[in-house]
Amino acid sequence: MNRKMISYILGMVCRAEGLLLLLPCLASLYFREHEGYHYLLTAGIALFISLILARKKPDNTMIFLREGCIATALSWIVMSLIGCLPFVMTGEITNFVDALFETISGFTTTGGSILSDVEALSKTSLLWRSFTHWIGGMGVLVFVLAVVPLSGGSNINLMRAESPGPSVGKLVPKLSDTAKILYFIYFLMTIAEMIFLAIGHMPAFDNICISFGTAGTGGFAILNTGLATYTPYQQWVVTIFMILFGVNFNFYHFLLIRRFKKAFMMSEVRTYFIVIILSGLVIAINTYNTAEGVSATIRNSFFTVGSIITTTGYSTVDFNLWPSLSKVILVFLMFSGACAGSTGGGIKISRLRILTKSVFREVNKYYHPRSVKKIKEDGEVLDEETVRSVGVYMCTFAVIFAISLFIVSFEGRSFETNFTAVAACINNIGPGLSDVGPTGNFGSFSIPSKIVLMIDMLAGRLELYPLILLLNPSVYIDRAGEVRAHFRKRRRLHKQDR
Amino acid sequence: MNRKMISYILGMVCRAEGLLLLLPCLASLYFREHEGYHYLLTAGIALFISLILARKKPDNTMIFLREGCIATALSWIVMSLIGCLPFVMTGEITNFVDALFETISGFTTTGGSILSDVEALSKTSLLWRSFTHWIGGMGVLVFVLAVVPLSGGSNINLMRAESPGPSVGKLVPKLSDTAKILYFIYFLMTIAEMIFLAIGHMPAFDNICISFGTAGTGGFAILNTGLATYTPYQQWVVTIFMILFGVNFNFYHFLLIRRFKKAFMMSEVRTYFIVIILSGLVIAINTYNTAEGVSATIRNSFFTVGSIITTTGYSTVDFNLWPSLSKVILVFLMFSGACAGSTGGGIKISRLRILTKSVFREVNKYYHPRSVKKIKEDGEVLDEETVRSVGVYMCTFAVIFAISLFIVSFEGRSFETNFTAVAACINNIGPGLSDVGPTGNFGSFSIPSKIVLMIDMLAGRLELYPLILLLNPSVYIDRAGEVRAHFRKRRRLHKQDR
Repeated sequence: MNRKMISYILGMVCRAEGLLLLLPCLASLYFREHEGYHYLLTAGIALFISLILARKKPDNTMIFLREGCIATALSWIVMSLIGCLPFVMTGEITNFVDALFETISGFTTTGGSILSDVEALSKTSLLWRSFTHWIGGMGVLVFVLAVVPLSGGSNINLMRAESPGPSVGKLVPKLSDTAKILYFIYFLMTIAEMIFLAIGHMPAFDNICISFGTAGTGGFAILNTGLATYTPYQQWVVTIFMILFGVNFNFYHFLLIRRFKKAFMMSEVRTYFIVIILSGLVIAINTYNTAEGVSATIRNSFFTVGSIITTTGYSTVDFNLWPSLSKVILVFLMFSGACAGSTGGGIKISRLRILTKSVFREVNKYYHPRSVKKIKEDGEVLDEETVRSVGVYMCTFAVIFAISLFIVSFEGRSFETNFTAVAACINNIGPGLSDVGPTGNFGSFSIPSKIVLMIDMLAGRLELYPLILLLNPSVYIDRAGEVRAHFRKRRRLHKQDR
Repeated sequence: MNRKMISYILGMVCRAEGLLLLLPCLASLYFREHEGYHYLLTAGIALFISLILARKKPDNTMIFLREGCIATALSWIVMSLIGCLPFVMTGEITNFVDALFETISGFTTTGGSILSDVEALSKTSLLWRSFTHWIGGMGVLVFVLAVVPLSGGSNINLMRAESPGPSVGKLVPKLSDTAKILYFIYFLMTIAEMIFLAIGHMPAFDNICISFGTAGTGGFAILNTGLATYTPYQQWVVTIFMILFGVNFNFYHFLLIRRFKKAFMMSEVRTYFIVIILSGLVIAINTYNTAEGVSATIRNSFFTVGSIITTTGYSTVDFNLWPSLSKVILVFLMFSGACAGSTGGGIKISRLRILTKSVFREVNKYYHPRSVKKIKEDGEVLDEETVRSVGVYMCTFAVIFAISLFIVSFEGRSFETNFTAVAACINNIGPGLSDVGPTGNFGSFSIPSKIVLMIDMLAGRLELYPLILLLNPSVYIDRAGEVRAHFRKRRRLHKQDR
């Protein structure tokens, strides 16, 4: 295992975070809030750690998938540990576990809060909270990749560990260019949302925070009422941008390079839009009441569908009060999630497509036992390894989900609360139903439950394996095996010499 | 498609059912109840249908997997349609859909009832209800197999369609002998339970009905209080036999042929017992209260664990009132189910073992990308096809579960009710939680929901594919394709001749 390289990557991530922490410092200057000092101090700590960890670039920059996974998982943990310091130092969140929960919820773009009164936070902290969504949405490692050159084939292992979806595609032959293109699209779309919201006269601070949250599909609100008090125009803008950030970024890349046909042929994106439109209409019909009127019903319905399927988690209504059918649709959307290669979480539409196809193939096998049918996506044959790994992914997901649900259930809350709390965390959504609905929060959970939910959020964001690998003792045990193998080899060479 | 053979098998199943219907007729004679006439009439109808369908054995007795699946699915539907007639004719269940639900619930060994007052039924009907469990537990087709000889390799396709578990093992080279051995063990164990219950002075009628329900892992009670009023000894006997009927029958076969070491080496059976002991102890600690005392707590805990994991569904306490942790454990047991090759339902322990192993293998792949590790069970390497099909089975299960949950949710009940109602039906358990808990029933569901739950029960009992295949239009459409292919071939031959 290339430990030096892992340490170097961690150092680069700390350096990036240290620089990113300067944004809340600037905000603090503008708003004349004293919280800025704590952010400046934290930035200093991050840069200091970075100096220790990434003093000099290792000679061997080669990393394999396992190192990529471990570096990614560790990066996210270190990032969260540093990122939560200001909350504790300013005393805005007194409990360290709560502060860590809030930060992990931010970076993983979950958006589930432990705070019951977010308006009590300083503007500096509100901005940092929303900014963590924006950072986490595209991923810090992708950012590092865009800057740090690694030896051939190494950085795909980092990207594979951090990027969502069943298969990682390079947009262009060079991976660091791919990362740059992704960040460029991300940046551009965030700016676009800010412009549209500014046209709708949204106050600048709200505009920036909400745009960060939408872009990362995070969902931290800056008002206790969520987004309910904004104008219909502003809500529609957020709805549309939430949905746009849930689209596979390859789609935008195809648009950028003017391959429109290829963009509009992407079956995942099509399915995504069909699901949104159908769910939105069914929920609108199901929740319609004359007091609210047609336009508000449709707006709230599509806002919520967009918010849940992209795993953003903003809310304009308390959907916990909706009829059972609408709630079940929302639970389905929680699990389906957005497109692969977007900033959204969940299982991802493309995985569900592959799964559905393999189920149909299995049924077909009963009828034509000897048929060897290949599964196609967008006209291309998927190799069996991808199909198999999607199946195993679902099973791993189910196992982690079941264990988490089991531990969280020790608290004795309702099944709906436990089930949707775990679902909201592992799929990086934010609000669930019942106690953790749009008007509730995660603050009252016990510390063991919070730790489980934090692990779920990280596991969900990093798509399970990097985190399992980190928790898997055999990774460290095998290190001993490597040492033994090394000595065996030396002994053998020694014998040959004699 | 060999339609004649499907019709012949259906006929044989009707004949078997006609004969089996004579048991309630005898009971009716003994109890001097007039309901017996209706059962006799139904037996007559069944035998008449059998005469039409199986007038003479087709010359070509060869059937493939698809025909096996379709014959099996159709058999179960026809059996249920005939079996529900007495309930309607006697007027004990006035609604036809309800009567069909009750019968499907009986044959699939689910044991979820639509009746709120079972004590109002005649003894004849109570016996038939419990007897359907016993018939369905081992499967009618296995019974038919033991009697009807089919051409080489054909009957494995019938057995594969009806038997539970990821792989069908022949106990002895000849399949009809395997079927006979299975029925022999089944019969022997049922008698054993009756003897043990008789020693505990259980009234003969209760004894017979409860033994039938235990053997088939069904769960229809004959008292409104479930099994709560029986003595601790009787409850322990039922607990032990429920657990024993959830063991893979291969285990007993190994014992019979004195291969004790092989029997006790079966890893599935070991896991099964470990899960039961652990769950039982955790629930006992979780539900302990001084008023009830230690022995009653342990008895109720193990009774419920045995009842749920084997998917029997008997109850001695209202576990709906248990703390959240215990309820979540029960939900897990609902899905895990018993061993493959037992009369129990659910996903089956062996599938979960294979799944867990493939998840570990996947994690391992991140660490050793080039390792080609095979999955072993009981020391034997599983072929990749089995591993893959287990993954696809889980996905199919999830898809059917999700669709059912969606449709049932239209009624506007609580999430816990909807979720556990579908879980209880698809896993063939019987009671769920909340509205469908041990003190509730399925009677108040709407007709569309009942139809969905009936399909779930059948799908669960037949392990999904036979029923999906039956619902799959391509089975019938392809028939046209076969005809076209036939004519194409003839034309070609015709051309060659010229």
